[in-house]
Order: sequence, then C-alpha cells, then structure tokens
Amino acid sequence: MTEEQLFKNRHSLSHIMTMAVLELYPDAGLGVGPVIDNGFYQDYDLPESISDELLPKIQKRMREIIKQGIEFKKYEMDFDKALDQYKDDPYKTELITDLKAAGEASLSFYKSDWFENLCKGPHVDTTKEIDVVSFKLTKIAGAYWRGDEKNKMLTRIYGVAFANKEDLKAHLKMLEEAKRRDHRKLGKDLDLFLFSEKVGPGLPLWTPKGTALRNVLDDFVWKLRKQRGYEKVEIPHVTKKDLYETSGHWEKFKDDLFRFKTREGHEFAMKPMNCPHHTQIFDRHPHSYRDMPQRYANSTMVYRDEQTGELHGLSRVRCITQDDAHAFVRHSQVSEEMLKIWEIIEIFYKAVGFEDLKVELSFHDPNESEKYLGGPEVWETAENALREIVKSKGVEAEEKPGEAAFYGPKIDFIAKDAIGRTWQVATIQMDMNMPERFDLNCIDENGEKERVVMIHAAIMGSIERFLSIIIEHHAGAFPLWMSPVQVRIASVGESHTDATLKLVNELSMQGIRAEADVSDATVGAKIRNAAKSKTPYTIIFGDKEKEGEDFQIRVFGSEEGVVVAQGDLVKHIQEKVLEQQG
Amino acid sequence: MTEEQLFKNRHSLSHIMTMAVLELYPDAGLGVGPVIDNGFYQDYDLPESISDELLPKIQKRMREIIKQGIEFKKYEMDFDKALDQYKDDPYKTELITDLKAAGEASLSFYKSDWFENLCKGPHVDTTKEIDVVSFKLTKIAGAYWRGDEKNKMLTRIYGVAFANKEDLKAHLKMLEEAKRRDHRKLGKDLDLFLFSEKVGPGLPLWTPKGTALRNVLDDFVWKLRKQRGYEKVEIPHVTKKDLYETSGHWEKFKDDLFRFKTREGHEFAMKPMNCPHHTQIFDRHPHSYRDMPQRYANSTMVYRDEQTGELHGLSRVRCITQDDAHAFVRHSQVSEEMLKIWEIIEIFYKAVGFEDLKVELSFHDPNESEKYLGGPEVWETAENALREIVKSKGVEAEEKPGEAAFYGPKIDFIAKDAIGRTWQVATIQMDMNMPERFDLNCIDENGEKERVVMIHAAIMGSIERFLSIIIEHHAGAFPLWMSPVQVRIASVGESHTDATLKLVNELSMQGIRAEADVSDATVGAKIRNAAKSKTPYTIIFGDKEKEGEDFQIRVFGSEEGVVVAQGDLVKHIQEKVLEQQG
Repeated sequence: MTEEQLFKNRHSLSHIMTMAVLELYPDAGLGVGPVIDNGFYQDYDLPESISDELLPKIQKRMREIIKQGIEFKKYEMDFDKALDQYKDDPYKTELITDLKAAGEASLSFYKSDWFENLCKGPHVDTTKEIDVVSFKLTKIAGAYWRGDEKNKMLTRIYGVAFANKEDLKAHLKMLEEAKRRDHRKLGKDLDLFLFSEKVGPGLPLWTPKGTALRNVLDDFVWKLRKQRGYEKVEIPHVTKKDLYETSGHWEKFKDDLFRFKTREGHEFAMKPMNCPHHTQIFDRHPHSYRDMPQRYANSTMVYRDEQTGELHGLSRVRCITQDDAHAFVRHSQVSEEMLKIWEIIEIFYKAVGFEDLKVELSFHDPNESEKYLGGPEVWETAENALREIVKSKGVEAEEKPGEAAFYGPKIDFIAKDAIGRTWQVATIQMDMNMPERFDLNCIDENGEKERVVMIHAAIMGSIERFLSIIIEHHAGAFPLWMSPVQVRIASVGESHTDATLKLVNELSMQGIRAEADVSDATVGAKIRNAAKSKTPYTIIFGDKEKEGEDFQIRVFGSEEGVVVAQGDLVKHIQEKVLEQQG
Repeated sequence: MTEEQLFKNRHSLSHIMTMAVLELYPDAGLGVGPVIDNGFYQDYDLPESISDELLPKIQKRMREIIKQGIEFKKYEMDFDKALDQYKDDPYKTELITDLKAAGEASLSFYKSDWFENLCKGPHVDTTKEIDVVSFKLTKIAGAYWRGDEKNKMLTRIYGVAFANKEDLKAHLKMLEEAKRRDHRKLGKDLDLFLFSEKVGPGLPLWTPKGTALRNVLDDFVWKLRKQRGYEKVEIPHVTKKDLYETSGHWEKFKDDLFRFKTREGHEFAMKPMNCPHHTQIFDRHPHSYRDMPQRYANSTMVYRDEQTGELHGLSRVRCITQDDAHAFVRHSQVSEEMLKIWEIIEIFYKAVGFEDLKVELSFHDPNESEKYLGGPEVWETAENALREIVKSKGVEAEEKPGEAAFYGPKIDFIAKDAIGRTWQVATIQMDMNMPERFDLNCIDENGEKERVVMIHAAIMGSIERFLSIIIEHHAGAFPLWMSPVQVRIASVGESHTDATLKLVNELSMQGIRAEADVSDATVGAKIRNAAKSKTPYTIIFGDKEKEGEDFQIRVFGSEEGVVVAQGDLVKHIQEKVLEQQG
C-alpha cells in the first residue's frame, strides 16, 4: 500500500469514527481530527466523560459503517455561506474565521453518507478501500481546544491504522514491547534513577547504579577521545548574557533559557550549550598553526526551560548532561578531524549494540535563511565539505534541508533499536559562524591570522536521552561492559558471608563492578533475584568456592554457564569487556 | 608582647597617623579607623586624591610624633554636648546619633596632644610603648563611607604593625612571598585557568592543564573514598524551592541563592549545597539496617550570588565545585564513619603537602540558638559525639562556639601553608537535623523505623578555593603525583621530532601526563622553558635516546637527576606517584 493510500485510510477512519460517535452523542462538538504517526485522532466536545470501555463499541460500529461501502465526496463552499450554516457551532465558526483571515480562496467539505465535515482531505473514494481489521482505537485523553489551556478541555480518541491486519498486529506488539521496556519503569525496577516531588519534574536524580552506568559510558567515550588527542576542560554553569549575545543564542533561544538577575542586577543565564564557553578557553592566548587542532572534551550539564507537559522520563528533561566536545581546527584539517569523530561514533555505537547507523546530512533551508547565522557562501562551503566527507566514507546519506543547527550543517547518525524504532543519536557539526562571531584565529605559517573552524562533536548527545534509548533497546539487560553491576556474588549460607564480602571488595578494588547478596534468602531465591536484576554474571559462593574451586558463572540470558579459575575471574571479565568494546 | 598590648599599639598608631594627616590636610573629615589583622586603617575625606608616594612622608612624621612620648587620655562626654561640638562634622554627627540610638550611656573620647577623637579605645598610655620601627604604612585604597556605595568614597590608608622590627620584617617578607606565589598570577603563567569578560567575574574557566590538576586531586579523593565504601551519585543543578523550604536553606540563605522563575512561573534555585538532593536519593526506597551506612560521593558545582567586590581569584567564586559526600548512618555507626573520613583527610592532606593539621570543634552558640536548626538536646548529643571522636584520636582540639553549620557541629581541619598562613580546609559535619526535616529512617533489627544521622564530608571542600591554597603553597611547583604535566619530553633536533611525539603518545596512553616540546628552540632554551613551567620531570630526547639509551631525567628543584631505563619510565613514575600519595 502506498503512503498516500495509508494517509487517506487513516484520515477517512477519523471521519468514520466521528459518525459512530455522533450516533451515540448527536450534539457532540467537533474539534480537530488529523492524521498522525501510525494513525489518527479526533477531538470531541461531549456532554459527559467517557472511558476506554466505550472504545470496542465505537470500533464495532465503525466496522459496520465501513462494510456499507460508503462514498466520500468533496465539495466547496464559500465563507459567508459556511459561517451562516455553522453559526451555532463555535468550533467550526472559529476554524472558518481563521481560514478566511489566512486568505484561503474557499472551503472544502467532505460528505460521507449523512455526515458532512469541513476538511482539506484527501480521503478514500469509498470505505471499500479500507480493511475492516486494519485499525484499532487505542486510548482516550483530554486535550484543550487548539492546545491552549485557557480553552475548554475536549475528549480526544486515538486510533492506529495500517495497511492490513498483519501490520496492525506488528505495531501493537511493538507497543506492547515498548511498554514492557519503558525506561521509566525499568529505571525504577533496576534502581537507576528517580524523580523527587521536592526537586521537581524533568530533574532526574541518579542512584549509585545509575551513576555507574552513566560513568561507564562517559568513560568509554573519553577513552576513545583521548586516543584521538582530546583534552578535558571544565566550565562554570552560568554566564553573563554577554556571552550569548555574541554567540547569537540570546536572540534565538532567550525564552528557552533559565534566566535570572543577580543581587547586583546583572543578567545571567544557565548555560543551554557549551560551545560559547569553550570559545573563551580557546581564545585565552594565541595559537600557532603548530598547536592546531585544539580539542576540548567536557561532559557537563546544560539547562532548558522546558514546559512541564513536554517532559517525558529521561527523554526530555530540564537538566541535560552532554558528553560534549569541540575541536578548533584549520580549514585544511576539517575532514581528518571529522573522520576521527566518525570513527569514535562507529566504535561506540557498535559497542552499545547499534551496528548499522543510518547517515543524514542536515542542511540549512535556503528559503529560510533568516533562521541561520552567516551568509550563503559560508553555508555552501560547509555543506560541500560534509558531502565530501560522507562520500569519502562511501556511505549513502539523505540530505535534509532545514535540519541544520542555526550555526552550521550536521552529519546526523540514526540508530534503529531492538523493536524497530529509529532514533537520531550522534551528530558531527561543522561551524564557521561561532569562530566568526568570537573572532577565533590561529597564526599561520606566514605569521598571519587565519580564521579557524569549530567542530561540535557530542557522541551520546544528551546522556539522559541516550540512556532512555539504550535502557529500552536492551530492556535493561546490559552487556557486561556497561552493566552498572557486572557480577553478583551470592552467599549460600551464613558461614560464607565474610568470604563473599571479601571477594566483592577485592573485585571492586580491581575495577570490577561487583555486589554481594548475603541476605537470609534461599539459594533459589537468590538466583531468581539475580535474574530479576538482569545482572550479567552471578556466582553462587558456597563451601566449594570457599575451598578455592573454580567459579561457576551463571550468565544472564544464556543457558550455558562459564567456568573460570578463581584467580582468573578479573582477567576474564576485563578481556570480555575489551572484546565487547571492540 | 601580649595580644592586648599589640592591639593598643595598632589602635594608637591609627590615631597618630591621623595627627600626621591632619597636619597636611587640617580640614580632612574622619571616617572609621579600626584595628584589623596585622595592623590598622583609617578613612579620610580629603580635599584631593593622594598616592602611595605620600606614605613615607606620613610615616616619617608618625615616628617623630611617637618619639615625643605623647600621652593618650580618655574622657567621657554626653550626647548633647558631643552633637553640639561636632555639628559641623557630618561623619561624627552620624556616628554619635547612631550610638545614641543604640542606647549607649555616654561617649568616650581619646585625647593625644592636640588631637581629640571619638573612640572606644583601648589605647597606649604613652607613645613610648610603641617601637618606632615596628610599623609600616602599606597602601591607599578607596572605601565608601559605612561601606555603602551610595555614600561618598573616602580615602583609606592601611598600615601594618607588630611588636618589633623583626616581626614586621617577617610579615613584610611573607607578603612579598605571597605576592610571588599569588595563584591568580601563577594560574595564568602555568595556563591553569582563566576569566572571561563575556562570562563574567567569579566564574573561572579551566584549561586542559587546570582541568587535569582538578581531576587528579578529585580522582585521588575518590580512590580513598571508594576504598571505604562510598558510591558515586549524580544530581541536577537546579530544584524547585520546595526542597530548600524543607531543608531550611530557603529561610536562612535565600538572598545568597541564584533564584529564578521558570516560564511557567515555578520558583526554582540553583543549588547552593548538595545535601538536600542527596536526602532524596537516600529516601527513594526503605533501607534495612543491613544496608546501612549508605555513602554517596558527588563532585559537583554549587552556586552563590556573591557580590562582585567580594570575589577574589579562585578563593571566592560564584560557581564552586565541591568534592562533596554524605554518609547516612545509624547512631551506632557515627564514630566509625567519622574516623574513616578522618583517615581520608590525613592521607590526602599529607599527600598534598600538609603534614600537621590543627583540629577545631566548631560548635553552636547556645546564646544564639535561633541561628540553628533543632533543639538543645540534639546539639548536646552531636557535640558530645564529636568530643569523643577527637578524644579517641588523641588530638588536642579547640572548641569554637558559634562556628557550627546551621544544621550541626563540625570537626574542622586547619592547614598551615609554606609561608605560615593558616587555612581552614577539610571538615566533617554531624547532622541530626536534615534527617529530621526530611524524615529519613532505616528499618532496625525489630522492624521499627530508626532515625538516621547524616555525616557531611567534603575533603577539599571547594576545589577552587583548595586550588588557590595549594597553588600558593607549592608556588606552582607541584609534586609529581599531582602535577598537570608530569614529564616533558624535549626533542634535540628535527630528526627527533617523530620519536618524541611517539613517546609522549605512548606515555599518555599508559596514564602518564606527558607533553612534548618539539619547537625550533635550542636545547638550552627548552631546558629553561621546562624549568619555567615547573614540570617535575624533563627528558631531553636526542640521538642517544633514539638509540634506546637510558633516560636522563632532569628533576625540577633538584640538582641531581634520575637515570632510568627506557622501558622502566612508566613504572618509575607510577611507583613515585604511589609513594607520594602515601
């Protein structure tokens, strides 16, 4: 089925749903009813609140209507006639008035059987085009008329629809699976992070295990960066607004910043990005061409004044940890430096379980040049440089105009997770504008100033968002190298407690993330608890282990265990970690 | 000489200075003129601005006056008479009016020869008590009348004074030495940190070398903590004000916080402390007595809305990195946990070059109980516990009432630096109030809730302030283990460049902080530059080194070098580091 046909099906299903609803509530007011990802919705002004239990009834009636083979017919109406016809309907009146003000020539309506609705279309010609078992009504939610909380709260009914029953089933299974993997639930079950009423929404706090997970990932990125000449820097989390006036962030993003006045009346902001701070470190003294590139890495938090309704677990937060890095390079070094970052991305994403990343070129939109810093030549140069780099890697990359950062074009990397969802993950950005605005130079071979280029290169991007992806991708069962606890040692009885604790301590001092289970529980319960915690390795420590016999490692998710001599455990884990890290 | 006599000398020198100034400017108005650490000052309202060049002249005249053996005589005056007598002197009129309003019974004046001044005293009986070569006028500065920038700017003259010439000389030498070691100058010379006009005052940015220094120290503290069961946690840098309303910070420190409203109108603050956030992590689920203590470590920034005039290099900043930690313990565990922290402090401060720390007990002031959280029993219990701990260490500790944190008493550790200045460094705080306010418990052996105790345990405290101390203590010549660059490899000629860079890269990959000097400079200049950078080890890399001969290490600050086989260099440095870390 074509995308166009699927769009029509979904759109028409929305009208058919409304027919079923109007049979139940003839006086229901109609809000908007668009096609969305995987389906559709429609907002209703109903005389009473309804629950999910009503959905099967509506769905059943929809199938009956579809089977009637109803035709959809389009017709036009002029504004005055429409306003008169719908003068008792405040929703239609508002929509028609707005369309008129927007300068539309006329209005289009769709008629299906007895139901007529203001609608741009397109729709199916006949409901015969729709498979009656290709859709499902999924949920009811509240939604303000036109998204404004000052308006009336309407009842929104959501549905999903696909080409056929199989596609629908696959989607519903994916949703089920996504629910099971929900990082908010797993975060609590695995004791990784929490939210506190007193601290506020969008502000996750990290437990010892969650912090270990963050740091393992961040340390691995750092290891890959260090090998490629990066150095760590550190910056304050606030600044006078002057920094962002120079960078252009103030003008573009002022409303998204946490801003405040100091007691002396100076205007400050919490940093929403780290690049402007890093320019100040680069610019602390002149750099000879011999000292280029300068590469700064800095995992640090940035802040966004997100609306509460937009927040979601770790995916969208107010306090974002970025594994940020900026390379200040000569023009002649752009390609080599970008390829180094690309290498890091390949190694890192393979290690975390994403083998094949799709590549996109996010370019500026020449029709909206006012959204970007710098002139057309600067953008052409930068975008051509990115095209060349992608070409040299022999990779297919879709070009996406309008997706660039406001200061430069990007190479974006897209990962597909275990249940088929895609996520934009790493990004490499080429920036010729910040160096211009901050007047950043190096001294070339002839003693002349040369304008440098900045490369922005976060690998995980937001560590919080990245963790939401990776927790769900692995359903919380992390590979050995990244698991917050790598090995759990469970004592058999009281007489093994001390030796168990001693072993955990020794492992820990040798850099292995180990934890003890010396509770009163039975060995069976301890094994079940270890599996529940999804710890990669579990060792039961009893008399034989106390006597020095080989460890029998239970490996999570595998029927087969591993046997290692006691003295080889650390080495075994270290080697496995290096192997998994590639 | 007694402290009291020295106070009198300093106070009387201030009056004598004024006599000399009034001879030059008979109509000078007089602001305040108190005794301060090491000396005195006096504020003057002068008809013209004066420069430091005038100080020797005033000082000479002061000596002549002292030699006259002038007597200081005290007399009383009632308020009305004083107000009448000084009706043309706006400064005196304001001071007298304030003293009257404050309910003082009468006013005391001191007369020395022709000079009479409103003054509480005490003073010398005769200037014969003062050694004419025991003081020095040091500088002139501007100062607002009563410290208020809305008032007139007066001229402040500072002097230092001691018992005798020797003490004065020692102090002046110390000042000279302190100037040479000034961390603000060394920070720039050694390329450790910077300030940016655009970012703002009090907000240091850290270069790669400065960041390395911070991280080496922080990692060492972490190593010591990890050995003692601490776990890392991570927290957002902002919070709803609710958290601080519960903790009590809002009421006590509201004006010192960076506060702001989100776009939705919620009141937020940047965190000034980490303990309230850590309570939320502890309180995420119930803890069995078996799981106690819980120990959280977290090096993170806190923020204070300091006034610009109060800022000073790294000593006083707006964005403070704390190597913070909190242990949540049972009452029965307080002593053992505190002693563990004490152990960390001993090892750490010995390694950074402070052998003998003085210990003080900072207790609450029972006369100002409104300044503290919690009742007298809580404070008595906590303070007695600290007394016991200090006793068990066999250490002499001065008790300082009024120096406690608002939530609990502290054990403070005081270091004396290379030029004799003392600094309060580490602190261990016992807190029974936060657990009360946040209702923090564990479940005891009988299944009952038991109130826990919080121990606050920063080792460096503010890393910025600690670095200002340590940079000046070592005058920038750091021991091998903590130096941002441990070894510098300088190539002899162009034919050694590649091998030098390769060696630096190899060392770096093995965790040694190495840098290359492959510039065009002569070997002599490279040796001088290495010394200037105060790098502990320097190796000149020439033909012999290329052929694999032993490295001749030049050791900073030592005449004798060290010879190591090329293959042993890493091991040699690693062993030296461990030796220095104790």
